[in-house]
Amino acid sequence: ERNKYENNDVAGVVTGLAWTQVGGDILFIESILSKGKGVLSVTGNLGKVMKESATLALEYIKSNAAELKLDPSIFEKYNVHIHVPEGATPKDGPSAGITMLTSLVSLFTQRKVKKSIAMTGEITLRGKVLPVGGIKEKILAAKRAHIKEIIMCSENERDIKEINEDYLKGLTFHYVNDMSEVLAVALTNEKVKNAKEL
Amino acid sequence: ERNKYENNDVAGVVTGLAWTQVGGDILFIESILSKGKGVLSVTGNLGKVMKESATLALEYIKSNAAELKLDPSIFEKYNVHIHVPEGATPKDGPSAGITMLTSLVSLFTQRKVKKSIAMTGEITLRGKVLPVGGIKEKILAAKRAHIKEIIMCSENERDIKEINEDYLKGLTFHYVNDMSEVLAVALTNEKVKNAKEL
Amino acid sequence: ERNKYENNDVAGVVTGLAWTQVGGDILFIESILSKGKGVLSVTGNLGKVMKESATLALEYIKSNAAELKLDPSIFEKYNVHIHVPEGATPKDGPSAGITMLTSLVSLFTQRKVKKSIAMTGEITLRGKVLPVGGIKEKILAAKRAHIKEIIMCSENERDIKEINEDYLKGLTFHYVNDMSEVLAVALTNEKVKNAKEL
Amino acid sequence: ERNKYENNDVAGVVTGLAWTQVGGDILFIESILSKGKGVLSVTGNLGKVMKESATLALEYIKSNAAELKLDPSIFEKYNVHIHVPEGATPKDGPSAGITMLTSLVSLFTQRKVKKSIAMTGEITLRGKVLPVGGIKEKILAAKRAHIKEIIMCSENERDIKEINEDYLKGLTFHYVNDMSEVLAVALTNEKVKNAKEL
Amino acid sequence: ERNKYENNDVAGVVTGLAWTQVGGDILFIESILSKGKGVLSVTGNLGKVMKESATLALEYIKSNAAELKLDPSIFEKYNVHIHVPEGATPKDGPSAGITMLTSLVSLFTQRKVKKSIAMTGEITLRGKVLPVGGIKEKILAAKRAHIKEIIMCSENERDIKEINEDYLKGLTFHYVNDMSEVLAVALTNEKVKNAKEL
Amino acid sequence: ERNKYENNDVAGVVTGLAWTQVGGDILFIESILSKGKGVLSVTGNLGKVMKESATLALEYIKSNAAELKLDPSIFEKYNVHIHVPEGATPKDGPSAGITMLTSLVSLFTQRKVKKSIAMTGEITLRGKVLPVGGIKEKILAAKRAHIKEIIMCSENERDIKEINEDYLKGLTFHYVNDMSEVLAVALTNEKVKNAKEL
Ligand SMILES: [Ca+2]
Ligand SMILES: [Ca+2]
Ligand SMILES: [Ca+2]
Ligand SMILES: [Ca+2]
Ligand SMILES: [Ca+2]
Ligand SMILES: [Ca+2]
Ligand SMILES: [Ca+2]
Ligand SMILES: [Ca+2]
Ligand SMILES: [Ca+2]
Ligand SMILES: [Ca+2]
Ligand SMILES: [Ca+2]
Ligand SMILES: [Ca+2]
Repeated sequence: ERNKYENNDVAGVVTGLAWTQVGGDILFIESILSKGKGVLSVTGNLGKVMKESATLALEYIKSNAAELKLDPSIFEKYNVHIHVPEGATPKDGPSAGITMLTSLVSLFTQRKVKKSIAMTGEITLRGKVLPVGGIKEKILAAKRAHIKEIIMCSENERDIKEINEDYLKGLTFHYVNDMSEVLAVALTNEKVKNAKEL
Repeated sequence: ERNKYENNDVAGVVTGLAWTQVGGDILFIESILSKGKGVLSVTGNLGKVMKESATLALEYIKSNAAELKLDPSIFEKYNVHIHVPEGATPKDGPSAGITMLTSLVSLFTQRKVKKSIAMTGEITLRGKVLPVGGIKEKILAAKRAHIKEIIMCSENERDIKEINEDYLKGLTFHYVNDMSEVLAVALTNEKVKNAKEL
Repeated sequence: ERNKYENNDVAGVVTGLAWTQVGGDILFIESILSKGKGVLSVTGNLGKVMKESATLALEYIKSNAAELKLDPSIFEKYNVHIHVPEGATPKDGPSAGITMLTSLVSLFTQRKVKKSIAMTGEITLRGKVLPVGGIKEKILAAKRAHIKEIIMCSENERDIKEINEDYLKGLTFHYVNDMSEVLAVALTNEKVKNAKEL
Repeated sequence: ERNKYENNDVAGVVTGLAWTQVGGDILFIESILSKGKGVLSVTGNLGKVMKESATLALEYIKSNAAELKLDPSIFEKYNVHIHVPEGATPKDGPSAGITMLTSLVSLFTQRKVKKSIAMTGEITLRGKVLPVGGIKEKILAAKRAHIKEIIMCSENERDIKEINEDYLKGLTFHYVNDMSEVLAVALTNEKVKNAKEL
Repeated sequence: ERNKYENNDVAGVVTGLAWTQVGGDILFIESILSKGKGVLSVTGNLGKVMKESATLALEYIKSNAAELKLDPSIFEKYNVHIHVPEGATPKDGPSAGITMLTSLVSLFTQRKVKKSIAMTGEITLRGKVLPVGGIKEKILAAKRAHIKEIIMCSENERDIKEINEDYLKGLTFHYVNDMSEVLAVALTNEKVKNAKEL
Repeated sequence: ERNKYENNDVAGVVTGLAWTQVGGDILFIESILSKGKGVLSVTGNLGKVMKESATLALEYIKSNAAELKLDPSIFEKYNVHIHVPEGATPKDGPSAGITMLTSLVSLFTQRKVKKSIAMTGEITLRGKVLPVGGIKEKILAAKRAHIKEIIMCSENERDIKEINEDYLKGLTFHYVNDMSEVLAVALTNEKVKNAKEL
């Protein structure tokens, strides 16, 4: 499943870790821009809280356009659509926040996302990263999907310490407190192939 | 039932495979354009996820207008209406995604849809095709309706392999990973009769 | 009850056949135009699917304006209101589709509707007519209301064949596959008295 | 209670007959105009069907502006607000239709409503008056409120005939089939005091 | 609690009497203007009927601008916000109508509200005052809050007569039929301190 | 948890005290401005009453722009987004009112919020502060989070007096009646680092 995205030379596709009723799973956040007036739309059978994460992510980016070296006028010239595939599965909760934000920053900057990396964490309007639940199940899902690096909130480190070491082999953890750290780890400085001029 | 559509010299009518409470069934996706401002409307007693598929399909087309050789200005000059007949039956789920996208590309390009072909598969914003459920029941329904070719996700091939060969006689399967493959198989290069100038 | 409408020299009033919890019934579709911007509104305690039929009917007409000899600019200059009387009774289902479409075509062309005719059938965006349920009960209701001709989908002919011949005496059936056939039967070529100039 | 309205030298206040869970009752329809853009708003704890009656009434008036000697431009220059007092009581059903229409015609023409008259009846888009239920209870309520004349659909005459004559003493009934008859009976040709210039 | 408002040199704050599940209570209606386009917004955990009262109050004022000596253009230049404090308590029903209208007239005229006065009564679009329920409980609550004068509908006088005289000591009642009487009693002719120029 | 915000050199982040199903807790109100047209949006899995608090807070500020030395034109040039982190927890009730208002005033004035201070209290449209519930649980939560000063309504002082003195050690209480007092205590006169020019 993950291979579909592995070779992703496109911007805006990021792997997240989700906690569903049947255990942990990986999910993908996709986002695209189309000419428009700054409308944000979201699909993928998402609940209210997960939709709010998308709004938060976009607001954070708008508010930090300067730091992210983005021309603020692009927010008024494009519509943003975020999709989370596998529409048959209802999805909710705040833990896709950092994944959504990474997706959007990749999209707006056209920077390539690192390979074999996944992430889970709530985001705040100020760019803080908050801890989330279901860490053990998410780690197992990440391993099954051959993920190599994982980004999460530093307050989730204690959850990792409670997991049997054998399960953690081959995984590198990045503990973060701020979105800027997420972006520094997750995004390369390379532009995607055929990067769009925004 | 299918004969109604068989002779379809009009653009935008595509046969899908659905999985309903009473087993597999074929369904038809119809779409038309009318002069307007780019509004998408959807009818046919559809649930939230199936409506999202329509949005996804249109977003994908807008985002890939160049590859599809479409003038982006048409999206602002026409309204698009997608309908799934048999309003008495509630319909939902992501599996009509590739059918909807094929319908819209036929509509915008005025290319003829291949005869006796049906399809089922979820679509992502990036044009990936995802596997769906109910494959066995859908195949039986396709046979009853004299379908000859079926398009589905390559990950659904394993579902086909579990079906008794007798049921598969006379059917050709096209396993795909991307929407571009769906379109290459499903759409002819011939324009429909009385093709509209958009 | 029906006599109220029998002498209808006005455009847009058409008799349909409905299947309610207390058996078959006739219903009337009324529609009027008022100066406006192309807004469609619908009243009569209608459910979601019946409202969708109204949208479908109007979309079909817009898309086939040329064939119907309608100036497309009228759709932007008038609002359309469709009403189904007897507001105390909730109404739903797709079977009023052809009745609604006939009503709107009569309205836009100001052509007189044939006398003593009733109809039942689902409509698709492409103008196909689909079969509907409750045929026996609808026929009985039509007889009680002194209807003489009935239009329905050719696939509903098998339902008529299962009805005792005695019940069918005095009724003429028109079996159709396309909306164009419905209109050819149901609408006269005569304009209504005091026909509006649109 | 009724006395509050008896001396009504204002346009737009009309007495209706309602059938509630605690028996028949009289109700008042009030309407006012304010400078605006043609928006219709409705208050009074009304259900969906009763709100639709308000829409129907206004549409009928717009569509028959010429016959009612109304300048069509007024519909775009004023907002209309219809209120049904006694907000603690939920109200629904189609039977206030003719009362609402009479109220609005009084309002737009500034013609005085006849004294001591009440009415009940469903209205259609074409101005037909349909029969309604609860006639016996409504008559008793009208008598208690010293109503002298009552307007209803001619098909409700049979309900009146089933009522003991003693209850009907002092009441005059107007049986009608069309809205034009309602207006002829209910509205005087006198303008209200301080009639507005529209 | 009431003392917070007692010294109110601001316009738009009026004391109402409410009937809640735990007995009678006083409530405060606050309203403010801000530069805008005539939007009315309402907060305070209000139900549908209480929100309708706010709409009615504003419509009445617009329709009677001349009598109230208000320049009609102010309704388009300001937004109005009405709030009923104590958001933890859901509030509904029509009885705050006269309190809301008094609040808004105070606001638009910048006239001071009389001290130690409270009121309860439904309002109609034409400015009539209707009786409400829970009078005994409301009187007890008014006494506890050291209210001295109470305005209510003249039809509620019979409810007062059923209350033991001892409970009524120190209270003056104003029985009214029209909003104009409410305003005459409740509003002083003095402008509030720092009255706004509208 | 609180440390994330302790060092907050940014405007608009304020600590509140909440009463949840699992006892008292601290919560953070974040707010940011982005170029826009004065739209207020709110996220954080908030209920109706808590959303109303945000509206109230913004209305109060608009109405008191002069006193707060704010140029009224900024309200039309920026969108305001308020977020309450920890999206997995539903939040409701009026008690975050003063926290939201403090957050917005800090945002619009770019004044620094005092360190180690938390608050709880309902706000009214006129800037009064009302008492709230759950005081004991909130105090315990504040202590656990190393809060040093707490702002609440003077009517909540009686709740503090019922708490064992040992629990109150190290806490300073500010009892207030008006929002102006909240702001005087909670906001410093120092601008935040890199204060925005609005
Ligand atoms: Ca999967
Ligand atoms: Ca999965
Ligand atoms: Ca995630
Ligand atoms: Ca079927
Ligand atoms: Ca399908
Ligand atoms: Ca009937
Ligand atoms: Ca029908
Ligand atoms: Ca009554
Ligand atoms: Ca209280
Ligand atoms: Ca009250
Ligand atoms: Ca917490
Ligand atoms: Ca709080």
